[in-house]
Amino acid sequence: MPELRKDPTSETWVIFSPERQRRPQFFTAHGEYTLTSANCPFCEGNEDMTPPEIHSLRIANTTHDKPGWKLRVIPNKYPALKVEGLLDKRADGFYDKMNGIGAHEVVIETTSHTRGIDEMEEDTVYEIFLAFKHRILDLKRDIRFRYIQVFKNHGIQAGATISHPHSQIVALPVIPARTTDRLEHAQSYFAKKERCLFCDIVQHEIRFQQRLLLENGEFIVFAPYAPRLPFELSLYPVHHYAVFEEMEDAALRKLAIIFRDAIGKINKALDHPPYNMILHNAPFSKDNRYSEHFHWHIELLPIISGTGGFEIGTQSFINPMLPEESIKILKNDK
Amino acid sequence: MPELRKDPTSETWVIFSPERQRRPQFFTAHGEYTLTSANCPFCEGNEDMTPPEIHSLRIANTTHDKPGWKLRVIPNKYPALKVEGLLDKRADGFYDKMNGIGAHEVVIETTSHTRGIDEMEEDTVYEIFLAFKHRILDLKRDIRFRYIQVFKNHGIQAGATISHPHSQIVALPVIPARTTDRLEHAQSYFAKKERCLFCDIVQHEIRFQQRLLLENGEFIVFAPYAPRLPFELSLYPVHHYAVFEEMEDAALRKLAIIFRDAIGKINKALDHPPYNMILHNAPFSKDNRYSEHFHWHIELLPIISGTGGFEIGTQSFINPMLPEESIKILKNDK
Repeated sequence: MPELRKDPTSETWVIFSPERQRRPQFFTAHGEYTLTSANCPFCEGNEDMTPPEIHSLRIANTTHDKPGWKLRVIPNKYPALKVEGLLDKRADGFYDKMNGIGAHEVVIETTSHTRGIDEMEEDTVYEIFLAFKHRILDLKRDIRFRYIQVFKNHGIQAGATISHPHSQIVALPVIPARTTDRLEHAQSYFAKKERCLFCDIVQHEIRFQQRLLLENGEFIVFAPYAPRLPFELSLYPVHHYAVFEEMEDAALRKLAIIFRDAIGKINKALDHPPYNMILHNAPFSKDNRYSEHFHWHIELLPIISGTGGFEIGTQSFINPMLPEESIKILKNDK
Repeated sequence: MPELRKDPTSETWVIFSPERQRRPQFFTAHGEYTLTSANCPFCEGNEDMTPPEIHSLRIANTTHDKPGWKLRVIPNKYPALKVEGLLDKRADGFYDKMNGIGAHEVVIETTSHTRGIDEMEEDTVYEIFLAFKHRILDLKRDIRFRYIQVFKNHGIQAGATISHPHSQIVALPVIPARTTDRLEHAQSYFAKKERCLFCDIVQHEIRFQQRLLLENGEFIVFAPYAPRLPFELSLYPVHHYAVFEEMEDAALRKLAIIFRDAIGKINKALDHPPYNMILHNAPFSKDNRYSEHFHWHIELLPIISGTGGFEIGTQSFINPMLPEESIKILKNDK
């Protein structure tokens, strides 16, 4: 059984999942993937290599866990957290722990073993965001969960073990440290200004223009004022939405277009780097208490140089590139 | 001029240092170092390849910046921060910035191009810690600085660009996010219990034994209750000392012995992995306001698997190994 333990010095929870030691490593020491479409568990025809699907987008008259799909959502075979059981929060001597209750799902984004987001049809990218929305709406009905973390690791250096395009959804019984932290700042900003911090950032960046990469009326993509990594990008809805899952399907279509364009810009300027996509959402709350303070958004982190224990140990970042410069490169103006 | 910018969503400062783009990369894409002792700027005889030394340990009758040294402290040739100038804190439109004032020094630990900490003489390791103490005591006299971050990146995957054994000292005009955060928790613990949180952790770990790797009366090395990475270790003075630089030289000798032993255990069990060493110290304060709450310590982070944007984006960690298990492996009991 996985467990969560609280570090008393930072008051953050760490997930311990010994089962993930059994995960096969599908890449070599030199960073090359070893799976081909014949033995890839995410390829069409290999449905029996994965746990049964939770959700799928299928061609008419095809059966679940058989070929004929366009997108599949499956439980992670080596889950960080388990769905069955009670949290059982308890003391462990001097410390605090609870059972590792949660969900860990994989969104297999396409049948193609190698296609990048920017090579997919607009419709395929839209269906990925639609799958996130469906799964969040379903998972948030479980009162044991307090946060759903949607993310994508693309490339070995970004943490992916399988190259076949996929994203992950983790439902957590606790709120991640960075989310709590940023939520607190947003609440204190709102208390002072009676405005959403993120709305103010969006408006500032639209006026300032020099960190803006893309805009389409409903969404903007920009380099944040103080990015921790070179080429880090933020994608925000222009208007105020606290949570991703309240977006209309039509808006998700516009999101798909701008997201695909952003990945295209990154791939063109930086020659297809590994990257992480992180969806920052407001945590669940029955009384919608965060609806005015938080504003969902996506963080896009190309992995250009290594990050290691130093950043983890200090949470200090030394970025060799100002965001205005990285935007020039991404726009290909330089 | 480097600058510091504040991310308004996390209220943390990021250092922007465009000069670090000029840093040569002394390793290949496959992770092999390219420098040999003939062209290594940290090797004896190549003193003219570095800026003039700030501090050194020398054989009698040798001249600064010439051969004949055992340890050298030099300014980083590609500093993240610059010593000259004023902070000039100011608004930048909607945001906050200041000049990148600080110091960035390199401790060349030995003349040997390849010797690991566990292969060094006890005396050499002691001299490294003594150099940290001397430099901290000197740098803290500069009232522009609020924190000194001492750290060591060993190996390319831990962020080192040069293999020659060295550590780094960065004097910052701000306190790193993780330090502020942990200090707050320590203060609130002290307010409630009238005891140092870290002293309580040390006493608990000594009694519990199962996460303890080494102890020598003055220091202990243990796996923390909720480590974020497999094989993460903590090294604490057993008795309460808020700041590293108040340690007597005799204690630093005992620190050198246990630190060398800890690196030896890591190297033996994990076959010489890359690692980061991070010294966590109380921030400066004229009134010694943190002297009861904080307790300096060292974090040792072997880099076994990749960490990437996911951890940076969420500050969530999924650790596949419980600390009790990693201690068994490090002790070679398993």
